[in-house]
Amino acid sequence: PKHYNITLLPGDGIGPEVVSVAKNVLSLVGSRHGIEFGFQEMPVGGAALDLVGVPLPDETLSVAKQSDAILLGAIGGYKWDKNEKHLKPETGLLQLRAGLGVFANLRPATVLPQLVDSSTLKKEVAEGVDLMVVRELTGGIYFGQPRGFSTTEKGEEIGFNTEVYATYEIDRIARVAFETARKRCGKLCSVDKANVLEASMLWRKRVTLMASDYPDVELTHMYVDNAAMQLIRDPKQFDTIVTNNIFGDILSDEASMLTGSIGMLPSACLGESGPGLFEPIHGSAPDIAGQLGLFCLFYLILQDKANPLATVLSVAMLLRYGLQEEYAAITIESAVLDTLNNGFRTGDIFSSGKKLVGCKEIGEEVMKSV
Amino acid sequence: PKHYNITLLPGDGIGPEVVSVAKNVLSLVGSRHGIEFGFQEMPVGGAALDLVGVPLPDETLSVAKQSDAILLGAIGGYKWDKNEKHLKPETGLLQLRAGLGVFANLRPATVLPQLVDSSTLKKEVAEGVDLMVVRELTGGIYFGQPRGFSTTEKGEEIGFNTEVYATYEIDRIARVAFETARKRCGKLCSVDKANVLEASMLWRKRVTLMASDYPDVELTHMYVDNAAMQLIRDPKQFDTIVTNNIFGDILSDEASMLTGSIGMLPSACLGESGPGLFEPIHGSAPDIAGQLGLFCLFYLILQDKANPLATVLSVAMLLRYGLQEEYAAITIESAVLDTLNNGFRTGDIFSSGKKLVGCKEIGEEVMKSV
Ligand SMILES: CC(C)[C@H](C(=O)O)[C@@H](O)C(=O)O
Ligand SMILES: CC(C)[C@H](C(=O)O)[C@@H](O)C(=O)O
Repeated sequence: PKHYNITLLPGDGIGPEVVSVAKNVLSLVGSRHGIEFGFQEMPVGGAALDLVGVPLPDETLSVAKQSDAILLGAIGGYKWDKNEKHLKPETGLLQLRAGLGVFANLRPATVLPQLVDSSTLKKEVAEGVDLMVVRELTGGIYFGQPRGFSTTEKGEEIGFNTEVYATYEIDRIARVAFETARKRCGKLCSVDKANVLEASMLWRKRVTLMASDYPDVELTHMYVDNAAMQLIRDPKQFDTIVTNNIFGDILSDEASMLTGSIGMLPSACLGESGPGLFEPIHGSAPDIAGQLGLFCLFYLILQDKANPLATVLSVAMLLRYGLQEEYAAITIESAVLDTLNNGFRTGDIFSSGKKLVGCKEIGEEVMKSV
Repeated sequence: PKHYNITLLPGDGIGPEVVSVAKNVLSLVGSRHGIEFGFQEMPVGGAALDLVGVPLPDETLSVAKQSDAILLGAIGGYKWDKNEKHLKPETGLLQLRAGLGVFANLRPATVLPQLVDSSTLKKEVAEGVDLMVVRELTGGIYFGQPRGFSTTEKGEEIGFNTEVYATYEIDRIARVAFETARKRCGKLCSVDKANVLEASMLWRKRVTLMASDYPDVELTHMYVDNAAMQLIRDPKQFDTIVTNNIFGDILSDEASMLTGSIGMLPSACLGESGPGLFEPIHGSAPDIAGQLGLFCLFYLILQDKANPLATVLSVAMLLRYGLQEEYAAITIESAVLDTLNNGFRTGDIFSSGKKLVGCKEIGEEVMKSV
């Protein structure tokens, strides 16, 4: 049988729990499709800080690089919040992205018919939302040099960062976005702030140039402030959105909250070559946990209440985008839908009349449907 | 009687129309409160480009600076969209902000009970939303140096901008925000990206330091991606939000769209001393016009269909924040509410059972209620 090596990076908080469920689902689906998986678990984030004192140990990165795909759980927690920058769990995540060269972050925001009521949007606005944010992930203001602190002539302290994009960085993410749009509904909206920022002007110019290679894709441009509005006014106008690292951080989170069920949303981070990194979106936003009330993920661990479905769906993305195993991906996605159709819900997506189950149990239900 | 000089900058598109209505309302309210207004109209934006070839003529800026307050209509339009950067209408707006030193942008997002159905959010989520975004307006990546285009050693073109804040810039906007929160519900949420950006780390440090001067204000911090989510999940959790220029651009537009009635929202731009700049928020977002369908403001001119109420409410902010004429401000706000209670609506906020009227007519209804 085919064999793939998967690096598991459970990380912090609910990470280990949801990754364990997703791993079981992956193994089972593999056995149905004649695929064998080898798993290697490595520390990252707060877990790595506690173990070896850095958020991304060299060995974790090198094991990850040599594998066929990487599954990440969650990173961060209050415990490490006051750490200095180079000792923050988040820094480990940024180092991982840079180290793997995964410049393209695909973040779908889909409102499932079964969960349309979870959205805070009116039903007629939320229903049918199905968009994909393609976020540039290894450039822009997240990594731009120079950055740091300094003192002005007048003795004022300043903090500064550089938003910078080179043509090759824009071109490669634009290509991923056009290809993505082509496979979806053929509509690509590039989001920038070209009326103010030079980095955005270059972005718009390069994306526009590339459009001639994709006559079948309809390209539009939108300013980021307007995009933040349009996502709320009429999210269905969007098919594929492409944008820079920081705008993508903001807009993809906004888009995911439109669905009302961020416990269900997966993501993929892809590079030119080498393994992709796959993670539930709740996992990459540690600060959510403390704010979300019912969604209060980190506190759900002891009670086995976390929703593992975003991680399970991340495994589907891993199969599709990381290993080109489309059939196995579809098997997982159908199993998740079946589980929802059978009425099973974790607390974050519960509504009356449904069956409230824990993390492990909903995982088992998915396996029954595989 | 008291006398104030007001600079009117009608600008482009629907600007002249809505400013004319607001001017009439201001004059009338003044006469009721023993206040006399002198008005001087000056060109800005596309109108100034057509007239004298620059988006902010020196004379416009100097007249504005010498007046007691400035009312701006709308800036920009398709006609000038392909202009070079220094000849864009938007550049005139940025020059005006910098020239006036108006570093604090107050942007309320209020869901009026009469218009709660305009929101795309569920009624129970939208109802009672009443928040204020305090956006830093003359610093950060909008104005930071260095900026521009360049070529790397490898011959790659790059576009770059600098996000930079000095302590004094953070301190003065933080002070405005704490004062604003104190007059509202005493809750201030500072939004940044301090887990990644040095400019944000300094921001968070300085805002935190200032909190000791305001023991009566409850200060929290939130990452910008989370804030973009929380605004949709539960906007009522927010009272006052303070953030930098670019995050404020995005979040204030997101917040305003939550109300579903951006044709109703005013804004104020204030400096240390000198006159404030007041404008409807739709006026500062020229790109909306082409995207908004029913809201398609620029095309509403010929049909007298624009909603002047955001500009009328901007005049109320002008009275309150610019001239400390609180009573006159309240008179205007009540008149607007009365007009809505009497069932009058422009097209953008129309719903069945209400009386559809044009720009001039709704202005006259407001005047009847003054
Ligand atoms: C944790 C943080 C550094 C990260 C980011 O900003 O990229 C997160 O918000 C995300 O979106 O994955
Ligand atoms: C027109 C543009 C330069 C402006 C900005 O980005 O500040 C607008 O979007 C606003 O919010 O007033």
